[in-house]
Amino acid sequence: MSPFPTDPDPRDPGSVEFADILAAAERISTYVHRTPVLTSERMDALSGARVFFKCENLQRIGAFKARGAHNAVFSLEARAKAGVLTHSSGNHGAAVALAARNRGIPAHVVMPEGVSAPKLASVERLGARITICEPTLAGREAAAARLQRDTGATLIHPYNDPLVIAGQGTAALELLEQEPGLDAILTPVGGGGLLSGTVIAAKGRSPGTRVFGTEPAGADDAYRSFKSGKLTAMADPHTIADGLRASLGPIPFAIIRKGVEDIATVPDESIVAAMRLVWEVMKIVIEPSSAVPVAALLDHRLPLSGKRVGVILTGGNVDLGALPWMGA
Amino acid sequence: MSPFPTDPDPRDPGSVEFADILAAAERISTYVHRTPVLTSERMDALSGARVFFKCENLQRIGAFKARGAHNAVFSLEARAKAGVLTHSSGNHGAAVALAARNRGIPAHVVMPEGVSAPKLASVERLGARITICEPTLAGREAAAARLQRDTGATLIHPYNDPLVIAGQGTAALELLEQEPGLDAILTPVGGGGLLSGTVIAAKGRSPGTRVFGTEPAGADDAYRSFKSGKLTAMADPHTIADGLRASLGPIPFAIIRKGVEDIATVPDESIVAAMRLVWEVMKIVIEPSSAVPVAALLDHRLPLSGKRVGVILTGGNVDLGALPWMGA
Repeated sequence: MSPFPTDPDPRDPGSVEFADILAAAERISTYVHRTPVLTSERMDALSGARVFFKCENLQRIGAFKARGAHNAVFSLEARAKAGVLTHSSGNHGAAVALAARNRGIPAHVVMPEGVSAPKLASVERLGARITICEPTLAGREAAAARLQRDTGATLIHPYNDPLVIAGQGTAALELLEQEPGLDAILTPVGGGGLLSGTVIAAKGRSPGTRVFGTEPAGADDAYRSFKSGKLTAMADPHTIADGLRASLGPIPFAIIRKGVEDIATVPDESIVAAMRLVWEVMKIVIEPSSAVPVAALLDHRLPLSGKRVGVILTGGNVDLGALPWMGA
Repeated sequence: MSPFPTDPDPRDPGSVEFADILAAAERISTYVHRTPVLTSERMDALSGARVFFKCENLQRIGAFKARGAHNAVFSLEARAKAGVLTHSSGNHGAAVALAARNRGIPAHVVMPEGVSAPKLASVERLGARITICEPTLAGREAAAARLQRDTGATLIHPYNDPLVIAGQGTAALELLEQEPGLDAILTPVGGGGLLSGTVIAAKGRSPGTRVFGTEPAGADDAYRSFKSGKLTAMADPHTIADGLRASLGPIPFAIIRKGVEDIATVPDESIVAAMRLVWEVMKIVIEPSSAVPVAALLDHRLPLSGKRVGVILTGGNVDLGALPWMGA
């Protein structure tokens, strides 16, 4: 998959500037929600910090991914009319479908055989054209390449794309408007789009705010890449946080290694406990990926005691019929 | 139980004026959240209306009851220091406990033998003194009377109290500030505190806004009282909406019969389906009682097609280990 799937950019294609995030915020403002920031005395007491939860689970399509997809789709120029393409069957797939519908152009989503019925239905409901492929990376890439050739559609990468990164950065930009002067912002890290966008947003808007990544211990390639300074792919991720199994992308990594304060890892047991606690105490539905930074706070894995901490709750798409605390 | 448990009021003790709601809003503002209003394209499409969800499930203690309890507790004068008392083991019990803690006075909560451990823990965590009684109405009332005699604590009724009603009315007052000019507001009705407070708030702030009650078919005493014009108690309620099993109180009824447009009833199957849909689509945790007005909208039981409709989502306190759609 090309690392630069969108229109050529006259600048260094790997760079994202604060101005790009400001432009993204403007570009996407009519299509995405300004999500609320919630607080909870009990979560504060349990974490020992003052925590501000940016509720991207309440975002369109139930995830922050709506931001990056809209920025990428609405940045397309002449090529737009041929449509857009992705092979994510998760939140990014739904986000691209929604953004294309809002722009009035076709969206093609490649999904593997055996994809769950609710995932398929949610992308179909958004008007995307679905192509079912063999459930392997090779099958997916072949199907995407064929579609791209046949339709001329532009591939929107879920994270290794400066426009997607700039879009994701608008969540932190908003959070820092809603709660100025935070000591820190925590996000989960999978492919790195959100974490890298958050770095650029924080440096531009609030240079004193430190940015931390949080990652499942069973998919800790970002942690290892950050510590070694060398991008290391994740061969065999094992975590309940299905949104974070992707390997860190090279464009996000270049931003993260320079701008992130530290990355903490948390085990799946802590992720599930944090997820259930947020549902119970805060009355919001979050998916396991969203619970990763919460788990890091509750387990005191970062030096944030007494600090004002923003947490980006990334999404709320879960199968309510198969919750991790239900008996098998 | 006395219908007028709080300090004597020089006016007609059954009356609640719009000014009382404005005063309540001022009195409680530092203790309760200004809850967000959420919208959802998909909920609009399914209901055929434009719906604004006032998220009192995100309120302190996870329910709008925090409003009425704070208004009643902070209105007490000399008697306050002897503390307050309630025998609700649900949201009102937690609300009174929190309000008393915030005022720095004792709270006594009478709970029946066999009350669930999470309910007990949540009231205990708020610092209330718990008295366990026999699980009958007589046992509860005897325990409350004894406590009242021994301590001098003031009983805070969950709904048949003008100050509680005025506090509950602040939810609709806020909603009408956040979304002016709504065509209608829907609330569930159990004892009637929220519905009657909503009537007073709407008449005062937005006379063109019609107020509708919604009630489980298995606990339809408000519906029957409204239709017959005669207050009829609920002998044997059967509904999953545990917050709505109480019988309508006389003070709320006097307000409701004059000011409510209509009351719709919905079966439990519709309540559970609406509850699950809200979790899935809107990513928020609501309890069955909150789903009652949503079910009325989804089942098109009220003439609201194409209208701008406010719905008060009353609470989010559920046992996550025993959701109604989990297998037995």
